[in-house]
Formats: sequence, structure tokens, C-alpha cells
Amino acid sequence: MKEPAFQDQGSVHHCHGCGPGNEKGLRIKSYWDGDEAVATWTAEPHHCGGTPDILNGGIIASLIDCHGLNLAIAHAYRAERRPIGSAPRIGYVTANMNISYLKPAPIAQSIELRSRIVKIEGRKAWVSCTLSAAGQVCATGEVLGIRVTWD
Amino acid sequence: MKEPAFQDQGSVHHCHGCGPGNEKGLRIKSYWDGDEAVATWTAEPHHCGGTPDILNGGIIASLIDCHGLNLAIAHAYRAERRPIGSAPRIGYVTANMNISYLKPAPIAQSIELRSRIVKIEGRKAWVSCTLSAAGQVCATGEVLGIRVTWD
Repeated sequence: MKEPAFQDQGSVHHCHGCGPGNEKGLRIKSYWDGDEAVATWTAEPHHCGGTPDILNGGIIASLIDCHGLNLAIAHAYRAERRPIGSAPRIGYVTANMNISYLKPAPIAQSIELRSRIVKIEGRKAWVSCTLSAAGQVCATGEVLGIRVTWD
Repeated sequence: MKEPAFQDQGSVHHCHGCGPGNEKGLRIKSYWDGDEAVATWTAEPHHCGGTPDILNGGIIASLIDCHGLNLAIAHAYRAERRPIGSAPRIGYVTANMNISYLKPAPIAQSIELRSRIVKIEGRKAWVSCTLSAAGQVCATGEVLGIRVTWD
């Protein structure tokens, strides 16, 4: 049986990008794929950019941010051999994000996000992420997350 | 009489971040303040981050992206002594965006965005942007935009 998404294991409930409890949010679902995390996501028409056929750049940043931090969280739990969401609860907040937009992402296509841990150093996690549509990488991002304890 | 916002002068109608016609979008409104652009914006509860009291980092990226590009567009029209939205219509698309998150932005506070042109070189515009709440800078961003002709 497939393991539930990171987000459904109790990491962040409200977040606009990834909270399962945010009905107006993007509600991405991230899963392990070996040491990487993968998510597929489908846009709604109002997530468009300058023209109605392409995905908005800010939404792309949101997807990369949340998918990246969710991997950092899942990775930290895995390193401690604990289930995601178990106490003391691990969180990450974004300190820096750098996104390169390589080509327009068609809004009608399913979006694939793929992230991997680049480096962990103390409370800092550097995560790299790609956003693809129709098999082509449309954007890449590096996210620097800082570990926090929520509880 | 106050000049209409950049976005209400016909730059980008649909965009999730700044399109006046996108009812589910963020609909920011940017205005000249000397050579800078300023916008104030109020979040809705679903724009929250990891906790319900703070503004989501992806939303912050969206605001900085759209406010920055709208300044680039307005600046290009001003340099040509043409009204915003006049033909041939000038657009900018984001090539790169780098956001530093300095402190949590409280979701209940009015947000102020302020952007300025750092450099223009051919089709490229580098724009710097700050996002403040309650008089404190919560995030800074640099946006590299590439000029395009929409029509």
C-alpha cells in the first residue's frame, strides 16, 4: 500500500501551498521516490499567469517552496527514524528561495515536482527542485530551509 | 486625481497575482511613488503559511514577482513617454526571482510592497523589492524580468 503523502501525515495543516485543511490552497501531495520527493499537481484556470494558458510564476514559486520544505521535513524525520508528524514535531521555514523560469508551463498539463536534498548543515537544509510539464523542465528552484520545532 | 493602478491601465488582465479580472487572484494594485512603485495589500485567512497567523511564503513570492514586473512594465512605458497599455503593448516575464525571508509577516497586518529598478540592459530589467508589515521589512526580493511584446 502506498504511504500517505507527507502532508497527510500531519506536517502542516493550514498552509496555502500544502495544507490538506486549506480548501482554497494548492494542497500539493509529496511522496518519497527513493531519496527524492515527487508530487504531481493540476492547476485550476485561475492559477494562470500573464496569459490564460500558462501557469503563474508565483504559483510555481509556491509549489517549489512547499514541495521542497516538505522533503526537508520528511528527510529529518527519516534521519531520526520517526514517523512524520510525531512529537516533537519538526518544521522548516524558508530563509531563501531562488527560482529560475526556463520556459512557460502550460496550465492544462499535469505538473510534476521533484526535489532532492543538496546539503544539511545544522538547522539548515538546502533543497533543489524541478517543476516539469509534459516531460519538460519549466522551472528550477533552490530552497534554503531552517529547521524549527513547532510544538 | 490619483492615477489608476498600473494593473488597471491594461497591462495584464488574467494574472493570478495582479490581474484585475482574476476574481480568485491576489489583485495587487501598484502605483508610482517617485521612481519607485508602491502597493498595499491585505491578505485573506487562506493565504497563511505553516501557522494561521503568518503570511505564506509562496504568496510573498507572488506579490514580489507581480509588483516587480509591473514596475518594469510601467518604467518601460514611461521611458517611451507612452501610457501604460498602449500599443505595441509591453510585457515582462520573469526569468529569475530570489527571495530572502527575514521574518514572519503577520497575516492580519496590511502589507506594503515597494520596488525600484536596479538596472535595465536591453530586454532585461533587474528589479528590487521589499515586503513590509507594521513598518518592518519581512522579505526582500530581486526579480529579473525579460521584456516581451504581447501583441
